[in-house]
Amino acid sequence: MKTGKTVITDPFWLRYRSVVRREMIPYQWKVLNDEIDVNIERERNDSSIPNEKSHALENFRIAAGIHEGHHYGWVFQDSDVYKWLEAVAYSLMEEPDESLKKMADSVVDLIAQAQEDDGYLGTYFTIEEPYRKFKSLMNSHELYCAGHFMEAAAAYYEAVGNQKVLDTAMKLAEHIEKALGPDGEFGYDGHEEIEIGLMKLYHLTGEERYLRLSNYFLRIRGTDEDFFGDQKKTDPGKKPVIGGMDQLTRRYFQVHKPPVEQDTAEGHAVRLVYLCTAMADVAASSGDQDMLDACRRIWRNIVDRRMYITGGIGSTVHGEAFTFDYDLPNDTMYCETCASVGLIFFAAQMLRNESVGEYGDVMERALYNTVLSGTALDGKHFFYVNPLEVNPAASQLDPGKSHVKPVRPEWLGCACCPPNLARLLASVDRYIYTVKENQCLVNLYISSTADLTVSGGSVKITQQTDYPESGTIRIQVSAQQDHPFDLGLRIPGWSRTYEVTMDGNEAGCSSGVYKNGYFYIRNLTGEHEIILILCMEPRFWRADPRVRDDVGKVALTRGPVVYCLEEVDNGKNLHLLSVDPAGKTEGETEDGELGHIIRITADGRRIREPEDGQSLYRPADETEPQEENVRLSFIPYYTWANRGSNEMSVWVRTV
Amino acid sequence: MKTGKTVITDPFWLRYRSVVRREMIPYQWKVLNDEIDVNIERERNDSSIPNEKSHALENFRIAAGIHEGHHYGWVFQDSDVYKWLEAVAYSLMEEPDESLKKMADSVVDLIAQAQEDDGYLGTYFTIEEPYRKFKSLMNSHELYCAGHFMEAAAAYYEAVGNQKVLDTAMKLAEHIEKALGPDGEFGYDGHEEIEIGLMKLYHLTGEERYLRLSNYFLRIRGTDEDFFGDQKKTDPGKKPVIGGMDQLTRRYFQVHKPPVEQDTAEGHAVRLVYLCTAMADVAASSGDQDMLDACRRIWRNIVDRRMYITGGIGSTVHGEAFTFDYDLPNDTMYCETCASVGLIFFAAQMLRNESVGEYGDVMERALYNTVLSGTALDGKHFFYVNPLEVNPAASQLDPGKSHVKPVRPEWLGCACCPPNLARLLASVDRYIYTVKENQCLVNLYISSTADLTVSGGSVKITQQTDYPESGTIRIQVSAQQDHPFDLGLRIPGWSRTYEVTMDGNEAGCSSGVYKNGYFYIRNLTGEHEIILILCMEPRFWRADPRVRDDVGKVALTRGPVVYCLEEVDNGKNLHLLSVDPAGKTEGETEDGELGHIIRITADGRRIREPEDGQSLYRPADETEPQEENVRLSFIPYYTWANRGSNEMSVWVRTV
Repeated sequence: MKTGKTVITDPFWLRYRSVVRREMIPYQWKVLNDEIDVNIERERNDSSIPNEKSHALENFRIAAGIHEGHHYGWVFQDSDVYKWLEAVAYSLMEEPDESLKKMADSVVDLIAQAQEDDGYLGTYFTIEEPYRKFKSLMNSHELYCAGHFMEAAAAYYEAVGNQKVLDTAMKLAEHIEKALGPDGEFGYDGHEEIEIGLMKLYHLTGEERYLRLSNYFLRIRGTDEDFFGDQKKTDPGKKPVIGGMDQLTRRYFQVHKPPVEQDTAEGHAVRLVYLCTAMADVAASSGDQDMLDACRRIWRNIVDRRMYITGGIGSTVHGEAFTFDYDLPNDTMYCETCASVGLIFFAAQMLRNESVGEYGDVMERALYNTVLSGTALDGKHFFYVNPLEVNPAASQLDPGKSHVKPVRPEWLGCACCPPNLARLLASVDRYIYTVKENQCLVNLYISSTADLTVSGGSVKITQQTDYPESGTIRIQVSAQQDHPFDLGLRIPGWSRTYEVTMDGNEAGCSSGVYKNGYFYIRNLTGEHEIILILCMEPRFWRADPRVRDDVGKVALTRGPVVYCLEEVDNGKNLHLLSVDPAGKTEGETEDGELGHIIRITADGRRIREPEDGQSLYRPADETEPQEENVRLSFIPYYTWANRGSNEMSVWVRTV
Repeated sequence: MKTGKTVITDPFWLRYRSVVRREMIPYQWKVLNDEIDVNIERERNDSSIPNEKSHALENFRIAAGIHEGHHYGWVFQDSDVYKWLEAVAYSLMEEPDESLKKMADSVVDLIAQAQEDDGYLGTYFTIEEPYRKFKSLMNSHELYCAGHFMEAAAAYYEAVGNQKVLDTAMKLAEHIEKALGPDGEFGYDGHEEIEIGLMKLYHLTGEERYLRLSNYFLRIRGTDEDFFGDQKKTDPGKKPVIGGMDQLTRRYFQVHKPPVEQDTAEGHAVRLVYLCTAMADVAASSGDQDMLDACRRIWRNIVDRRMYITGGIGSTVHGEAFTFDYDLPNDTMYCETCASVGLIFFAAQMLRNESVGEYGDVMERALYNTVLSGTALDGKHFFYVNPLEVNPAASQLDPGKSHVKPVRPEWLGCACCPPNLARLLASVDRYIYTVKENQCLVNLYISSTADLTVSGGSVKITQQTDYPESGTIRIQVSAQQDHPFDLGLRIPGWSRTYEVTMDGNEAGCSSGVYKNGYFYIRNLTGEHEIILILCMEPRFWRADPRVRDDVGKVALTRGPVVYCLEEVDNGKNLHLLSVDPAGKTEGETEDGELGHIIRITADGRRIREPEDGQSLYRPADETEPQEENVRLSFIPYYTWANRGSNEMSVWVRTV
């Protein structure tokens, strides 16, 4: 799948990537090593969950026989290490760093030492319950962790050529194939991920067996919907590894029917998008039309009925899950950072299957909003849950909203999101282009230099842009004369207009054509300067009226960036505000606490709070709400909660 | 406190009371005896709670030594029997029934047999953990059950003069006084109720010791806010009797500070109103001004900031509790039937303290809405939770709303609400009048005949009315000549106008005066006909704009009855509807599935559902919602969910 290398030069993204390199990776390293007294914020008030420290690397040391002791933490604690290693790999590709490489090499050595002779890798079961390996797959996360290791291994091998990491991963894959492949026991993991990891090994090595095994797991999933229950009945363990999960339904695990027959996005949101990522990858890599059709159906269900305007998914905290069509509550939802990361993976794989701009649009929506919102501007505080409406009093005093944090905690009891975010930000260069045959799609507009292979020829593409501040993207293309290719520029759905010029001339019908969200400049060869101008004027959006919680409300965007109101700018009780979507908006550049942003003001009204002593309920004819004109001040959603605990709202009532 | 007897003759209430007598009491009797295969609906999906059967009377048989076996069910299972007995008592006062009396007498015999020699009564601890009596008061519900028994005993003694029930209750009170009174161990119950029960004994017997003990429990509560925790540390039991409660806060139990110092309604809503009922009773009975002031503050907080328009209280399912000011979500709240029953108790006691119409208004609001909504029209199905907005899909697919049932279940795992409802409906005659010194307040308008003692003279008051269908109330008063008294007619806050005539003449300034919600006809003696005409035109109401969930919405009432929209009358997706509060409403009498009601129609609009295939988010300027005029059809809230599972909404957007 490797078709070139892209180097990001964009200040907007370099800042984030530098935060990953300078803050997240070293910070996470210390956490993994228990060198930090972490102010853990528990996901829920579940005192049965141990999470006072990470212990993740210590688990490997114990499994490797270097230290004595017990496993500590989640059964999937290993994956924190793997995700860290994967983020390090991307970071090293961007900027070599000998001391970081040394750390990572030592982690690889440790992982290899913790691997058992037969190839099994998984510290919990190696240390605590070896007799129970692969016997409680609903909750054990064994293949989930293996998948993350394979992803990390592929990336780290690509980054520095470390043979040991690849060997370890291949040995693990072989072990899993033997144990659970077509000739082994029937079984698949409760948390999809191995299917992605195997595809990464496939793309790296070209070995068909990994594609076949990934496809096998996808194909047998849900064919026996009682499998998890049956395995539970004969589970030799004393207690389930993670409590409570057995109460959740088959939909939670996407085993209610075989994935290839599924039509809707069900269950745990991260699991679902990981499943779809693997399915779309297998479909693109093998031409499996049934699998592609299933991906298309589930995609349509997400995008048409179950996705927030921020690219967030997962309408309820209970099971961190999808619920039902058009159910998109703004203040009780989950919208996990990891789920939006996974949605980007899914979109990227769908782009390999078909050149449809919507995939890029959703990727961009998730990236600039829910994903970036997942981290504080300092790179050291993280959201799991990315609400569209927050009232700190509710977070504090209504236990039904206690999962909705008004400020980002330092680290999380279940530490999946921060390293997932780090690996995405560190690899964002990989999502800019999709190259296939004689086509190169430009999905993301990020200043960068890319050396690609398209149509068998080498192509150099340089993007210069202040996007998303500016809508002007200058693209220098230098392509071999005898390898013509089509360059597809994504025309975002949010842009009211667009303009493309090539070498100073309007790129009209003769050289260009619009199709399915991309504007193609066809049969490109030689050197050209292409300029794309997107319309960046602020726009208000309405949700489909079937979305109960958004009726009578609008949301503001500018380019790909969703905006929101914060209390610190607009006063308490944001629900008293309304906005005139037909009124004049003004954007103004600002460099301050929120970094370099464009603040947008708009005409609005505020209902006056009544004097004290008035009745809670008053006759409608005697109490027309008293309103005053105000100027509303919107900031980019991804910068919210960087100025202390305060109210926030994306959707605003219309005047 | 007994000041007379009131016999209800009103068809509206006779129907409910007949349902209590003919359906609820016999049905509950069978349940208590495990004679019914109950289709239990669990309150939550907590598999640790045993509730497949009631076993309540069997527990008594085992405790009495008649049968062998173990206690089964909630630790407070005994209270189901007591509440049944109390309902039976009121029912027998209304209409003697020898076979019902026999049943009840046999229950009294059984309870007396289950009482230990020293006076202790409580089947769980007698059977299972006698060494643990009064040692785990946070969760044990021992005094809670005792309080319910005292209430039942006082009522049953009053009804049929059964001496054994009174003796048993007094022996129990003496035991508790010895064990936990001023000369015993320090302690009070996690669930307030004993304080009410003791006051019932006080009012029946006139014995000051019961008043003193009630006051003592109220006064020591919260003086040591660590008491529950400390007792837990030395609890000799193997496990808490009810799991999970120890995670809840001191506010849940109203022990964060002494009740007399509390300003806001905190914690479990039923507990809070029971606490306040006792405080208001003690204040009225002893003239304790501090206690009255605390009641007034908490009342103001409830009524001004924490009460639904239906008289429901408890904004969250988590702890079935209050949350914070103006937090009144319509679709996730609790609004337990029992809590509104308790709010009526509280209001009734406040009326003894001060003649303020608002207490009657709230009593009426709770009674005609949340309380009546608690039972299906057949009297055999019950709501715990009384939502103001329901979407059956959400109840089914969003676990955060699984407590919100779209139809009333037959019986409930924790069976507090049905018997609580039964005892209130069976005793509703007691809330019609408040008599004090030379004043008789008419709080509720219900056709009835009352023989009262006011100002030391006997007074007969006959009400004739079709209220709440009609706003005309005809009151015949016949009073002794030498005992003049003031008759106060409550003028409900919802009535736009009122008109009072006495013997055909306008009751103007000379004979009548309006004060604090009552219109007083002063110095009444002899025979008079007073006619009160209230304005029953339908009215739309707005909530204080600080109530986030009701901004831009109105609710419809007619008289004391809150109305709602149901899907069966108005189609799916009720949130697409809006109403014109300035438009014309029409009421029409209807006799059908919902009984005899007035249906109200109003001008409104419906947003058209978009064609399939449109984007979930669309530019505001291209998507002005398409609306069509519709006629909305409202039904009384208390009749909702009697026509199968469907959407319901009290608050409706304005056009």
